[in-house]
Amino acid sequence: MNGAQAVIRTLVDGGVDVCFANPGTSEMHFVAALDDVPEMRAVLTLFEGVATGAADGYARMTGSPAATLLHLGPGLGNGIANLHNARRARTPLVNVVGDHALTHKGLDAPLESDIDALAGTVSGWVRRSLATSQVGADTADAIAAAREWPGQVATLVLPADVSWTEGGSVSLPRGPRSAPRVPDSEVEVIAGLLGPSTMLFLGGDAVLEPGLRAAAQVAAGTGTRLLSQRSPARMQRGAGLPDVLKLPYPPEGARKQLDGVQHLVLVGAAEPVAFFGYPGMDGRLVPEGCTVHVLTTPGEDGVAALQALAQLAAPDAVPQLAEARRPDLPTGELDIQAMAEVVGALLPERAIVVDEALTSGYFLPMATVGAPAHDWLTLTGGAIGQGMPVAVGAAVACPDRPVISLQADGSAMYTIQALWTQAREGLDVTTVICDNSAYAILAGELESVGAASGGERAGKLLDLGGPALDFVALATGMGVPATRARTAEELAEQFRAALTEPGPHLIDAVLPRS
Amino acid sequence: MNGAQAVIRTLVDGGVDVCFANPGTSEMHFVAALDDVPEMRAVLTLFEGVATGAADGYARMTGSPAATLLHLGPGLGNGIANLHNARRARTPLVNVVGDHALTHKGLDAPLESDIDALAGTVSGWVRRSLATSQVGADTADAIAAAREWPGQVATLVLPADVSWTEGGSVSLPRGPRSAPRVPDSEVEVIAGLLGPSTMLFLGGDAVLEPGLRAAAQVAAGTGTRLLSQRSPARMQRGAGLPDVLKLPYPPEGARKQLDGVQHLVLVGAAEPVAFFGYPGMDGRLVPEGCTVHVLTTPGEDGVAALQALAQLAAPDAVPQLAEARRPDLPTGELDIQAMAEVVGALLPERAIVVDEALTSGYFLPMATVGAPAHDWLTLTGGAIGQGMPVAVGAAVACPDRPVISLQADGSAMYTIQALWTQAREGLDVTTVICDNSAYAILAGELESVGAASGGERAGKLLDLGGPALDFVALATGMGVPATRARTAEELAEQFRAALTEPGPHLIDAVLPRS
Repeated sequence: MNGAQAVIRTLVDGGVDVCFANPGTSEMHFVAALDDVPEMRAVLTLFEGVATGAADGYARMTGSPAATLLHLGPGLGNGIANLHNARRARTPLVNVVGDHALTHKGLDAPLESDIDALAGTVSGWVRRSLATSQVGADTADAIAAAREWPGQVATLVLPADVSWTEGGSVSLPRGPRSAPRVPDSEVEVIAGLLGPSTMLFLGGDAVLEPGLRAAAQVAAGTGTRLLSQRSPARMQRGAGLPDVLKLPYPPEGARKQLDGVQHLVLVGAAEPVAFFGYPGMDGRLVPEGCTVHVLTTPGEDGVAALQALAQLAAPDAVPQLAEARRPDLPTGELDIQAMAEVVGALLPERAIVVDEALTSGYFLPMATVGAPAHDWLTLTGGAIGQGMPVAVGAAVACPDRPVISLQADGSAMYTIQALWTQAREGLDVTTVICDNSAYAILAGELESVGAASGGERAGKLLDLGGPALDFVALATGMGVPATRARTAEELAEQFRAALTEPGPHLIDAVLPRS
Repeated sequence: MNGAQAVIRTLVDGGVDVCFANPGTSEMHFVAALDDVPEMRAVLTLFEGVATGAADGYARMTGSPAATLLHLGPGLGNGIANLHNARRARTPLVNVVGDHALTHKGLDAPLESDIDALAGTVSGWVRRSLATSQVGADTADAIAAAREWPGQVATLVLPADVSWTEGGSVSLPRGPRSAPRVPDSEVEVIAGLLGPSTMLFLGGDAVLEPGLRAAAQVAAGTGTRLLSQRSPARMQRGAGLPDVLKLPYPPEGARKQLDGVQHLVLVGAAEPVAFFGYPGMDGRLVPEGCTVHVLTTPGEDGVAALQALAQLAAPDAVPQLAEARRPDLPTGELDIQAMAEVVGALLPERAIVVDEALTSGYFLPMATVGAPAHDWLTLTGGAIGQGMPVAVGAAVACPDRPVISLQADGSAMYTIQALWTQAREGLDVTTVICDNSAYAILAGELESVGAASGGERAGKLLDLGGPALDFVALATGMGVPATRARTAEELAEQFRAALTEPGPHLIDAVLPRS
């Protein structure tokens, strides 16, 4: 068994049986070994940002890591932005980066660069495997590191000769440790603070169904307020589940939500801060005089703590749940409200919604809260170009569930190559492009930072018209059937049709120009 | 004057008046300031890899840096691959990376990451500007650093509040130092080695016209052999210029070129090494028993040294120059030879050729050597997805010259967004996609590394058909007129038409499937 075979066999035996890949010469033995380990599913992407984003989306839905396969420093560089998002999502991910043979390292060949420095910026664990005899154990350690609760990016740098040399062996990773539970005494302290001027700020595992139910029970029994972190990796919501608002993006909206809170209790979330700094504004959002407490850090068991808290403080309370209720199908002009209502009216059962709609998504939460229960995946780290790759990974993870990818136009262009992988793999993804022909969010930001000059040259840097992007042509050019919707009725008709046909579809929703 | 105005004014006064930009919120004051400094031309790209590649291409043609404008760590990450190529090209480049306000840094906001570590992997100089009063001087230092002979990437990290605060001032960069000349005594030593078993290995400034002429004079007078580095940033060639072969990519081809060389003299190039390591093969290419000498390092004046050498060793020799001679226009099947002959037959005067044709480019050197004198820009660092962005930069740098972008299909998809910027700016770029529906180079590499298993699953990772990429649709979707050529005649007709019309065009040259 050569090193590459040992790596793949160790991955598969360790439960990592999907690999999103952009291989090059230094990864050819890994590629060849795929035929020796048929349990590994290799998914080709045309750009590394698609591979890393897909691995992120996969693990968000399964809780278990996928692998990537990237080509030296430049390949890792192309994957950095979505690894950044994965880091912020605390996603378990085994990031395999091929490198020159050890015997080639000293030659400063053209592709030589500092892979370890790049990897360190996004990884919780980095190791360069130095011997074929060790590469199985190194891979097992990478799996174990990726799975450390709640999850992290583990980067294994794999020299070509470590791959091609014989003498590899398979290792089993140590089992994943369960999340540590916080002591009852700390739960009791928090229980003593509950009430209308206290807020539970939820993130991580606390925004999946069991955590949300327990938190909503606490809220129902004590009047404690609930708020979710701005961009959870995965949130469960919809009819029959508690409806918890997310921290708004604009600082003034965020402050309004936190107004009057005297005790802010963190449950798997970091203290809320503004996304960006603005002139004359404090980036901290916690109100003056408010005390911040920690029930659980992201590394602890938030669900158990919330359930203990509910048992202690509100054992008989009945959580308030969202009723099954959909908006009427809108008619006439297609604007962001009509778009949201179409999605809410037609969202299929068990949908996975990938949300990179940005400014176009304003009405989505209220339009979908009563739709059938669904998962909502968000842009965790602010690095745009995450949505379509995450949709790839979610669809690979959950082939029996429809994936709805709501995608701002400017951001779509960062990783548009994801459409090709959706077509090749026949993934059941319906992409709706929120096509307002602008970096709309930046027009707002230009004003927010006090820099709005109204200048023509500044405006041109935020404008995507001229030439207009034709997303129908781009999608069909990569094998994804696509249509254009100019009215609410057209969007509804096309959205419904896309959901009934298997495989990927794209709808270019033409919105009023921002 | 705020910090952003000071930065842009310093850039413009320092001769840096083009900026390839992908701004975000933290760069909004820079964007606003563009209306205050109209001498700065800002070129919007849809992806950071386009911005960094374009800045590289611009400087290769002008010898003078362009700036970029990137958005925090993820934006820099997206630009890393082409900054890697720029580093390998020794391109002068002022890489401006916006960051959170200094007051926001401690909050670990979602976009926070280790920008300095990322920047260090591709930059010769990195500085974070810490005060508005200093940012003009920091910018001037960045320009000076970028211009240090022969050039390097200088990264200036620009916090948002340093941009938006008043109190900036303009600085002038210290003038560029000219390249240091090697002492006559060293030239004399090399002169003593010349002859048929000696080879000058040329790179950097030595493969532009003056260096090549001097080297060819030495060759004509002494029988000394000439070879160019594999992937020069910019090479001048064509009718009336010396024809110097480039180091072949396959190690066996490279060794053949170096066979019998007893003295290898480096002129602005590093010692030749294999691009990748292969099982059982030494990555060094220099023949056993051959002594390596250095006439000039890349940081020294190669042209002056070659001219001194020619004066000393072959003062009256007449260099051998390529004759004006074009191939006949081919007919019938369109294969890589016919494609090369069309390019050679029709290459316009003063063309700039951007070559990322990879395996499809095999016949290009011989088909174009007698075409009118032209510049040839190559993939310096092996990070694919360089070609179309470099074409953007070259066309911005030289608006009166036609740019011919010869682009492999798989690589094209890494930075396909470059086409939109070509359309928006009306750049005179003719792109020919070498469409063989495969990562053809990797099929060869799978064999070269001894990993060819013939396996179906391995093969699938190298195959781009299924679905086929429709480059005509992709180009038109971004506003670039496009056609498809299936025969040699069609390619000739479409290539000629593209050259006569202003603005960008793309031709999808359908080649036999690899």
